Amino acid sequence: MTTQKIRIAILGASGYTGAELIRLLLTHPYAEITALTANAHAGQEMAAVFPHLRGADLPKLITIEELQTDALDLVFCCLPHATTQKVIAGLPDYLKIIDLSADFRLRDVAEYKRWYGEVHQAPILQGQAVYGLTEHYRELIPESRLIANPGCYPTCSLLPLIPFAKAGILDVSQVIIDAKSGVSGAGRSIKQNLLFNEVSEGMQPYGVNNHRHIGEITQELTAFADEVANITFVPHLIPQRRGMIATIYVRLQQGININTARQILEKAYKDESFVHVLPEGEVPSTHSVRASNYCHMNLFAGSSSDDIILISAIDNLMKGASGQAVQNMNLLYGWEETLGLAGGAIFP
Amino acid sequence: MTTQKIRIAILGASGYTGAELIRLLLTHPYAEITALTANAHAGQEMAAVFPHLRGADLPKLITIEELQTDALDLVFCCLPHATTQKVIAGLPDYLKIIDLSADFRLRDVAEYKRWYGEVHQAPILQGQAVYGLTEHYRELIPESRLIANPGCYPTCSLLPLIPFAKAGILDVSQVIIDAKSGVSGAGRSIKQNLLFNEVSEGMQPYGVNNHRHIGEITQELTAFADEVANITFVPHLIPQRRGMIATIYVRLQQGININTARQILEKAYKDESFVHVLPEGEVPSTHSVRASNYCHMNLFAGSSSDDIILISAIDNLMKGASGQAVQNMNLLYGWEETLGLAGGAIFP
Amino acid sequence: MTTQKIRIAILGASGYTGAELIRLLLTHPYAEITALTANAHAGQEMAAVFPHLRGADLPKLITIEELQTDALDLVFCCLPHATTQKVIAGLPDYLKIIDLSADFRLRDVAEYKRWYGEVHQAPILQGQAVYGLTEHYRELIPESRLIANPGCYPTCSLLPLIPFAKAGILDVSQVIIDAKSGVSGAGRSIKQNLLFNEVSEGMQPYGVNNHRHIGEITQELTAFADEVANITFVPHLIPQRRGMIATIYVRLQQGININTARQILEKAYKDESFVHVLPEGEVPSTHSVRASNYCHMNLFAGSSSDDIILISAIDNLMKGASGQAVQNMNLLYGWEETLGLAGGAIFP
Amino acid sequence: MTTQKIRIAILGASGYTGAELIRLLLTHPYAEITALTANAHAGQEMAAVFPHLRGADLPKLITIEELQTDALDLVFCCLPHATTQKVIAGLPDYLKIIDLSADFRLRDVAEYKRWYGEVHQAPILQGQAVYGLTEHYRELIPESRLIANPGCYPTCSLLPLIPFAKAGILDVSQVIIDAKSGVSGAGRSIKQNLLFNEVSEGMQPYGVNNHRHIGEITQELTAFADEVANITFVPHLIPQRRGMIATIYVRLQQGININTARQILEKAYKDESFVHVLPEGEVPSTHSVRASNYCHMNLFAGSSSDDIILISAIDNLMKGASGQAVQNMNLLYGWEETLGLAGGAIFP
Repeated sequence: MTTQKIRIAILGASGYTGAELIRLLLTHPYAEITALTANAHAGQEMAAVFPHLRGADLPKLITIEELQTDALDLVFCCLPHATTQKVIAGLPDYLKIIDLSADFRLRDVAEYKRWYGEVHQAPILQGQAVYGLTEHYRELIPESRLIANPGCYPTCSLLPLIPFAKAGILDVSQVIIDAKSGVSGAGRSIKQNLLFNEVSEGMQPYGVNNHRHIGEITQELTAFADEVANITFVPHLIPQRRGMIATIYVRLQQGININTARQILEKAYKDESFVHVLPEGEVPSTHSVRASNYCHMNLFAGSSSDDIILISAIDNLMKGASGQAVQNMNLLYGWEETLGLAGGAIFP
Repeated sequence: MTTQKIRIAILGASGYTGAELIRLLLTHPYAEITALTANAHAGQEMAAVFPHLRGADLPKLITIEELQTDALDLVFCCLPHATTQKVIAGLPDYLKIIDLSADFRLRDVAEYKRWYGEVHQAPILQGQAVYGLTEHYRELIPESRLIANPGCYPTCSLLPLIPFAKAGILDVSQVIIDAKSGVSGAGRSIKQNLLFNEVSEGMQPYGVNNHRHIGEITQELTAFADEVANITFVPHLIPQRRGMIATIYVRLQQGININTARQILEKAYKDESFVHVLPEGEVPSTHSVRASNYCHMNLFAGSSSDDIILISAIDNLMKGASGQAVQNMNLLYGWEETLGLAGGAIFP
Repeated sequence: MTTQKIRIAILGASGYTGAELIRLLLTHPYAEITALTANAHAGQEMAAVFPHLRGADLPKLITIEELQTDALDLVFCCLPHATTQKVIAGLPDYLKIIDLSADFRLRDVAEYKRWYGEVHQAPILQGQAVYGLTEHYRELIPESRLIANPGCYPTCSLLPLIPFAKAGILDVSQVIIDAKSGVSGAGRSIKQNLLFNEVSEGMQPYGVNNHRHIGEITQELTAFADEVANITFVPHLIPQRRGMIATIYVRLQQGININTARQILEKAYKDESFVHVLPEGEVPSTHSVRASNYCHMNLFAGSSSDDIILISAIDNLMKGASGQAVQNMNLLYGWEETLGLAGGAIFP
Repeated sequence: MTTQKIRIAILGASGYTGAELIRLLLTHPYAEITALTANAHAGQEMAAVFPHLRGADLPKLITIEELQTDALDLVFCCLPHATTQKVIAGLPDYLKIIDLSADFRLRDVAEYKRWYGEVHQAPILQGQAVYGLTEHYRELIPESRLIANPGCYPTCSLLPLIPFAKAGILDVSQVIIDAKSGVSGAGRSIKQNLLFNEVSEGMQPYGVNNHRHIGEITQELTAFADEVANITFVPHLIPQRRGMIATIYVRLQQGININTARQILEKAYKDESFVHVLPEGEVPSTHSVRASNYCHMNLFAGSSSDDIILISAIDNLMKGASGQAVQNMNLLYGWEETLGLAGGAIFP
């Protein structure tokens, strides 16, 4: 266990996940933010890009070319996919990397091409990456140099599903995930459909059954169930900043009743700091996890005897991105998983 | 066709559906608002209860006991269920009634007891009621004295489903409806869970697979399919005022492809003023129907060849309540269905 | 009074004020929308730009160069300032014009240069324009060919101030206007500071005492008071779509008490359809005017005996832009001022 | 300096300020939450009242009668005014008290009666209380047993005003404060005007120039200026959860220009952890202080040479309530003022 401070760079620090990492790392006892890159803002103070960080002691933004890698231990990479591959391939071997992009999540490069439309440029590096869904890859993460931090929808969907897949009682041939996300999931992109007037007081499905995260969910569910999963996935844009709900409709193996199912879920997460199975009947809400690293989940009876409804809630920027990234960093260095993540949810 | 003004009372005018009826009727050429009841506010001006109605020429609020029924032609009833039965049973026979409560929607009184917990007090009247889903009960409505205006979730769910049920190609044994509603669907009840701080910036499922509207949806889908329907229904409370989305996951009869399905849907609604099947690929949004009587819908391929995803959007206070009630009034009197409903959607 | 339909073009129809004009004109008995221009969207259906207008019978969008002016009676101009001058200067003399930009509002071209940074290109046309604050320019508007429709902040501020200026009892040497606006006032510009995540759950002053509307407010207050007005003006961006409040702190001539002041205000607007002085003690709210052409106002005692606080509320897209433009059109053609504006406010 | 943990009770823990105190104290190294009272919820877990606190190790809620005061060092009192006096009067002398109600803020009991309508029941205790505006009462707080934590509006207004009052250059005869607050300032009261549908998408002034906080602001400004202050104060309810802006219009002594004024403000707060004077031209925003204990402020030129506009932003639940209370606790015990408050602002 390292207890002296590790030196950290955040690449792509001018986006929401970068800012959220900074917020968390500023309260982490063993983290030292050494460098922040953001090519479009190089030379600026972080407070000029994110005024809520005024008052924090932070290095100025630099270009990625200016990064001095020999003064670093760990890199969080918050760059867009495709760009990410090239940047990470160019980093020296002694650096540990937690990548928040999609570039190293799909183990099959053909799947990468299918969902992201381009040939993967770093397939060998891809082979070394570990999928950073902390609770289910806890053994592999500490040994890895490159952690592919999961997407927000996959985190929210897989956490309730994997225990059933592992137990071999999930009918993976028809898994329906109806997901709802706040707007911060789309990042700080300046697009018409993300304007206040286009978002507030409205809601809309998007990427209906062709969202890129289907690849990631399918890969993991197939792996844990050891059977090809068939996912139906419809995300919806909801007029709130943070927060995500996945409402999941599944069929269990014949004869598995809801009480057994509840026991499986509760057992899977009983020792977890961040994943809570709620008491029977209590419905997860994004209010209860806002700005925290928690995942709240529960299960409910469906309309046929083998059907169940799984509901889970996370903060997409936290357990769905930067929070889980810090949790993975803690695991990587042998620290308490909750370091820097003790803040709890913010309400109201 | 009557073209002289009909005299209208709104019972329970101090709720959101009452206020919305007033807004619509004020621009209707053949409607005259003669009486407004609201027992808790009797004696007050409407503008004291709803300041946005200041400037409108409206009668003062009275108690239901003060209502002079001989000066009326039509009653809109916006009272809570259970209360409604008794009030309507007491109205003279010559009055036409459009009831926005749930009291006359379920034809089977056992189903009423199951979902609403009480024995129905007016079963004979129940037998006379017509379910007011305008597009699918257009022949029966003009002949009826009592129209049971559908619930918001049933309207939003049934409009896309019924054409397939009618065509006999829908597998009604597994219909999954994931619905999302703005907060006005809950009315003006003063409850903690409806406070701004408890709603904004959050979302939450509720009534998971045991919401009362399941009875209504099941009844109608069963009737149109001529086969017992099995509905899974999860509504979600979304931080917006008006607007509802139903995302529906269904299986069609083997061999029915999505193009055929599209043709069925388009044919069903091609002559309708208020129901629009969107062009292929265009996703319904509540923004496009806000404050209007429109229903926008579309269909998308599921993950298996026979699966399709139906998406529909309405304004819950309009096509989901008061707008459809006015549409039914127009039908009842032989007027153009669009009278008083020409306003169009409000954006931004 | 013309009662046959007039043929109307909207120039710059792809913005919010254009869309709002369309919404209003579609229900106007004497308006026929003949042409819609939007150079960046030429060739598209309006429903492709504003899906909420699907179902309306509208001409396709064309470029301004394609406009056939001989088939027109009236033009609403919703173009940006500076561009507007050139376009209007090129229109034939027989066309009437209601301009929603700032280009013809300032009678002094030096003031135009001061606030808009450029030399006015059409000063003669400027001399012909009438300031379209309907209630106070009602005599001049019908005789004019070019109406400069007021800005939203000036409308909201001037309506409560002018009666006191006219009465000669307002100390115009210190008028403090603290204004708050919903986001639609900024139009559909695709800018970072208008993103949902940058606006919702936050508020911020902007243009502190140097907003361009100061020129317009100063001009009119000076004109009505016949004395140079000194305006302090701080607008704030508020996380809501529509709606504007002006809270105005003024001093009256010594000895004028608040009862006299109330009489002056009530008398000024007692016959107005759209301007309502609320009962004593009732506070204006944007809820009560949303999507309507109303202005609600009231006055309250300040902390010194001669000080009063004026509060007014409008919908910035309606009385603050398109609604007032339609009101001016009605006046121009001798129609009832309320035609096309009868919809009333939308709540909830 | 005490570094062993102090034992803390929160009285009235079921409100927003109580929940916020818990959130902060859970991360404080020297705080131990020993008791939580909430008479209406006695016997319940905190997570039943505030689900976002699930996972935290907290005592069950008890009645105030069940409180064992001998096991305590410090009490945070979050009870309503009037009730507070009686409860605090009954606490043993060895307990330190930080009171978040209004009961001990007004030093003059006549003023208390004027604004709160009741005779003060604990005038002697009142005389012992220190007004807990940390930055300006830093010397008195550590010696006090009873700290009257300031109101949110007074904190936001007084922080920018006091340096000028102290310098003797503020014309206190006309101070105009136009304040805007998010809804959490109203607490968790279940009232119609706080429902989501009554708040979202609207704004409204309230308590126009008769809000109770005027007493508190006047008292402090008068004290620091040594001259009777005359405050005009209009608060507005804004559709957001947290966050407050005060826009303040004042006149300085003749000849004091804005540069001098800026120097006075910057000097007053240059060593403060939580109060930041922004760089020239930068406008405070509630986004930048959300969920943090920061106050951001700036000053701008008015329309006359001696007029300036002061703008300040805080999170009403933090620097405006619970955050400042924790800051005062730190001061009381001689700890770093930032302990438990290091979290920084949350964005987006």
